[in-house]
Amino acid sequence: MTSYADNSVTVLGLGPMGRALAGAFLNAGLPTTVWNRTPGRDRGLVERGANSAQSAEEAVAASRLTVVCVVNYDASDAILRRDVVTDALKGRTVVSLTADTPDRARDTELWAAAHGIRYLDGAIMTPMATIGTAEAVVIYSGPEQLYREHEPILTVLGGTHTHLGEEVGRAAAYDIALLDIFWTAMAGYAHALAVAKAEGVTARELAPFARGIGEILPPIFEEAAAEVDLATFSGEDNPITSAVSSIAHIVHTSETHGIDAGVMRAAEGWARRAIGLGHGTDGFMRITDVLSQH
Amino acid sequence: MTSYADNSVTVLGLGPMGRALAGAFLNAGLPTTVWNRTPGRDRGLVERGANSAQSAEEAVAASRLTVVCVVNYDASDAILRRDVVTDALKGRTVVSLTADTPDRARDTELWAAAHGIRYLDGAIMTPMATIGTAEAVVIYSGPEQLYREHEPILTVLGGTHTHLGEEVGRAAAYDIALLDIFWTAMAGYAHALAVAKAEGVTARELAPFARGIGEILPPIFEEAAAEVDLATFSGEDNPITSAVSSIAHIVHTSETHGIDAGVMRAAEGWARRAIGLGHGTDGFMRITDVLSQH
Repeated sequence: MTSYADNSVTVLGLGPMGRALAGAFLNAGLPTTVWNRTPGRDRGLVERGANSAQSAEEAVAASRLTVVCVVNYDASDAILRRDVVTDALKGRTVVSLTADTPDRARDTELWAAAHGIRYLDGAIMTPMATIGTAEAVVIYSGPEQLYREHEPILTVLGGTHTHLGEEVGRAAAYDIALLDIFWTAMAGYAHALAVAKAEGVTARELAPFARGIGEILPPIFEEAAAEVDLATFSGEDNPITSAVSSIAHIVHTSETHGIDAGVMRAAEGWARRAIGLGHGTDGFMRITDVLSQH
Repeated sequence: MTSYADNSVTVLGLGPMGRALAGAFLNAGLPTTVWNRTPGRDRGLVERGANSAQSAEEAVAASRLTVVCVVNYDASDAILRRDVVTDALKGRTVVSLTADTPDRARDTELWAAAHGIRYLDGAIMTPMATIGTAEAVVIYSGPEQLYREHEPILTVLGGTHTHLGEEVGRAAAYDIALLDIFWTAMAGYAHALAVAKAEGVTARELAPFARGIGEILPPIFEEAAAEVDLATFSGEDNPITSAVSSIAHIVHTSETHGIDAGVMRAAEGWARRAIGLGHGTDGFMRITDVLSQH
């Protein structure tokens, strides 16, 4: 006996991303129930036809599928791991689009299994504005059969959906690695703009050239990936010693202006470690190999 | 009385990039003289018609314009700042395509002026393989009239040539800032691949998604530049507190696997400093503003 429609979906967590998810479900005409710990966040969604639940247990009871999108798994656990909610979820599916570490996803899989709850982990790889459009990229991991069962509903979030494998930590592992690339690049960009400013170069003057650097990264990332998997690190055109020479100029110029160069100093340390281990004629990607050597 | 043709050019330094530069001059049919501190590097170029000089002073005496491309300004000074070479350069032009800091370019301008040598600084922003093709990007700074005079020869290096201004340190300042973006991004990518590997994800599995992250960077860089110049750092969609939450997950996952997270820890420190200064609801680019605050 179920009290929900087969295409019903509940969204727990109505921050900007949670509201975007619920909006995409509503646009697709799905019976959508919403709940947020702090009330009042569901107003616009209710006007668009969402069912507003008074409690998390009422919200999860209303749908076959619950999508959770909160700040992290501490917040998610505080909602889901209360007896009334856990009981209401029995036999139903939780898809977590909450970002956290692979370990938290694995721990949640154990909790879900112990309570007869079906569980998939997922991660949204594109900004909020892409949800419901062709640009969205969402990745999932966990039981493939469960993913296929809910795929028709998840697909309305738009764009590209990829099931990365049965190991539930995979989506979070990809998420972590991709956020690592993103936030490190943004930190480098912020630092570069600070150094440029100290040299009398405005951000807008630098931007067209910065854009050019951004544009050469995707093909370089692909080439470097092949090198890393094969553990061949050709430094013929650009040995790591030459990278370290550039990096030293960056650190020097930054610190001459009193600008903290901590990120670049840490990168320099990695490169010098690779050189110290005898890899000076290899390319910069050799550092991938030495980061876990102590 | 000059003993050189008006379109003659000398290249000092025949590493991979110096050879590419000399090759482009030869392809354009210019009378090209080459020299390298370590002999034997000019063989292929001489076969293509280059004039091989026996000394740096002989090399610079052969042309109206000398292009220097060595590892850094220490190496460049060791070649140029010897009396016989300095004397031979009197009244001629040196264009340095050697990468170093803005301060070294400014110091070289003083030296050049004191010895009646005409001097432009430049930086090559694209890989060696682009030289002589439409993809090359080369930037210059120093006296505009001098740049215009030599532009017809410099243009044969291919692609886009930009004179950034009379202040001679500008090309190196752009170079430093752009290399900062590039090497920080590469360090982040190398680290991300190490973390992915520890989680059982190969570089080639991650690469298509990493490419996707690379592709969203150029427009984000342009938007962020406008914010930084206006000192408006909107965090409405993505406050710096949310970035710090992601960064903490990355650091935790990395260190759980014994992988050094120094770069990300330094970036986290910048973000936490911005939050500590009361900017927690701003966007991540606010760190540009706090990097030089002590």
